[in-house]
Amino acid sequence: MIGQRKKIAIVGVGLMGGSLALQLHEKKLSSKLIGVDANEAHARKAVELELVDESLPLDEAIQEAEVIILSIPVDKMVSFLPEVLNKITTQIVVDLGSTKSQLIAAVQNHPKRGRYVATHPMWGTEYSGPQAAVRGAYADKAVIICNPEASDPDALAWVKNMYTKIGMRLLEMEAYAHDVHAAYVSHISHITSFALANTVLEKEKEDNAIFELASAGFESTVRLAKSSPAMWTPIFLQNRDNILDVLTEHIAQLEKFKQLIVEQKDNDLKDLIEQANQIKRIIK
Amino acid sequence: MIGQRKKIAIVGVGLMGGSLALQLHEKKLSSKLIGVDANEAHARKAVELELVDESLPLDEAIQEAEVIILSIPVDKMVSFLPEVLNKITTQIVVDLGSTKSQLIAAVQNHPKRGRYVATHPMWGTEYSGPQAAVRGAYADKAVIICNPEASDPDALAWVKNMYTKIGMRLLEMEAYAHDVHAAYVSHISHITSFALANTVLEKEKEDNAIFELASAGFESTVRLAKSSPAMWTPIFLQNRDNILDVLTEHIAQLEKFKQLIVEQKDNDLKDLIEQANQIKRIIK
Repeated sequence: MIGQRKKIAIVGVGLMGGSLALQLHEKKLSSKLIGVDANEAHARKAVELELVDESLPLDEAIQEAEVIILSIPVDKMVSFLPEVLNKITTQIVVDLGSTKSQLIAAVQNHPKRGRYVATHPMWGTEYSGPQAAVRGAYADKAVIICNPEASDPDALAWVKNMYTKIGMRLLEMEAYAHDVHAAYVSHISHITSFALANTVLEKEKEDNAIFELASAGFESTVRLAKSSPAMWTPIFLQNRDNILDVLTEHIAQLEKFKQLIVEQKDNDLKDLIEQANQIKRIIK
Repeated sequence: MIGQRKKIAIVGVGLMGGSLALQLHEKKLSSKLIGVDANEAHARKAVELELVDESLPLDEAIQEAEVIILSIPVDKMVSFLPEVLNKITTQIVVDLGSTKSQLIAAVQNHPKRGRYVATHPMWGTEYSGPQAAVRGAYADKAVIICNPEASDPDALAWVKNMYTKIGMRLLEMEAYAHDVHAAYVSHISHITSFALANTVLEKEKEDNAIFELASAGFESTVRLAKSSPAMWTPIFLQNRDNILDVLTEHIAQLEKFKQLIVEQKDNDLKDLIEQANQIKRIIK
């Protein structure tokens, strides 16, 4: 039954998994929360912070749980998801990964494919680990459910109810479309932020007071540069083709600015900025 | 006397000037606030919003005021500042502009140079006009005073006291050094944000649902793209050489990411991201 609390295992109790655990409890979706983490310090910390009730090895957690939520880096996920599906009977398996095409392809012919629901909740912060988990996370953000027709109706219904309960806006999308969109409105932001941080950190080598006047604007554009290499490297590689498209276009847009500044084209620069101002339609 | 309230004219009662007006009143620095704005609608709005007590033409405002604060786009400032200095007797003149070398050069031999204090308070938002003025602005941010030795001691002391009273952290810097720093920790952020907005808006032409899943991370990196063309175009042109240096370095950093993604260099990508993570030292 959809409304019934379930025993839920969370594999990877870091920022994403830990914050979801807090919400699952808060919204009375879980009767028990089990943490699984390859990093023993993280597993202990998640119990200590009361994100989960206890920490168990994967196999025991799978056996006890009715729902298994995977929140691990996307490169590990591709080999890990089929292993988990091999081990389940009727449990629901959900992942929270930022890329979807490769993952969904990896299990498309798996006999337990129907028990799996592919999701990408569009929430996160630049911090990582269980201590980064925050209350009230995910609320008012979008969650994408990919290829919903490949999931069993009961599994899909439970997962949709879970996301609705924690306040998310549901969208359905085919995996490839998801990966294109994610490249444009999430992945590229991280690359520009990392690159901007490196630009200024390079300069700091010759001018160590460069940050003295860092403004709020700088903080906002560079905030994501604090994000985890273990999480983001595999995202960039798994979504490689789409990210290279966006990155190429973004560099071309920067070159356009550069050229107009070189040529001191006042009016063309204004036009280019006015064009960028159109983002007001989207970002309130 | 430093502690005495003064009659203050603010030329350009938009985001920066209007927000400063609110603070000048709040901190009891002004006995009267006079708005001057070439845009009549802005001038009226500033009075209506009670940012200033009244709006006057420039010459009358200069005659009545003891302090004149210039908050207009930096291209207009270069011709405007000498004109204002031509008209004053002993008034203090302060500017809030984001670039300094050209401006300071434009008045370096002016007989009233001593009455002028060159400043750049590192505060702003992506909005503009008098309706964008906010209470409590400027507090806890840095303000750079450029070439302070060229200002008369009484003018400098009053301006320093003003910024201290509104809660700013004072830094002194030579104009050229200021412009280099501003290029790295403020101006480039605006260019990356404008360019990122244009990148995704381009994509929207072929895929009009692209923004459906825009995340908080995207919002943060693209927020500045709402900023005013009239304010930012002249900043980019006046600080051209420094901005071209940073922009060239930034594009090179993006190319580095691109190359490593093309070559699928997992470990090198992780190293590059870890390097960017060093920004944690600076941005809390």
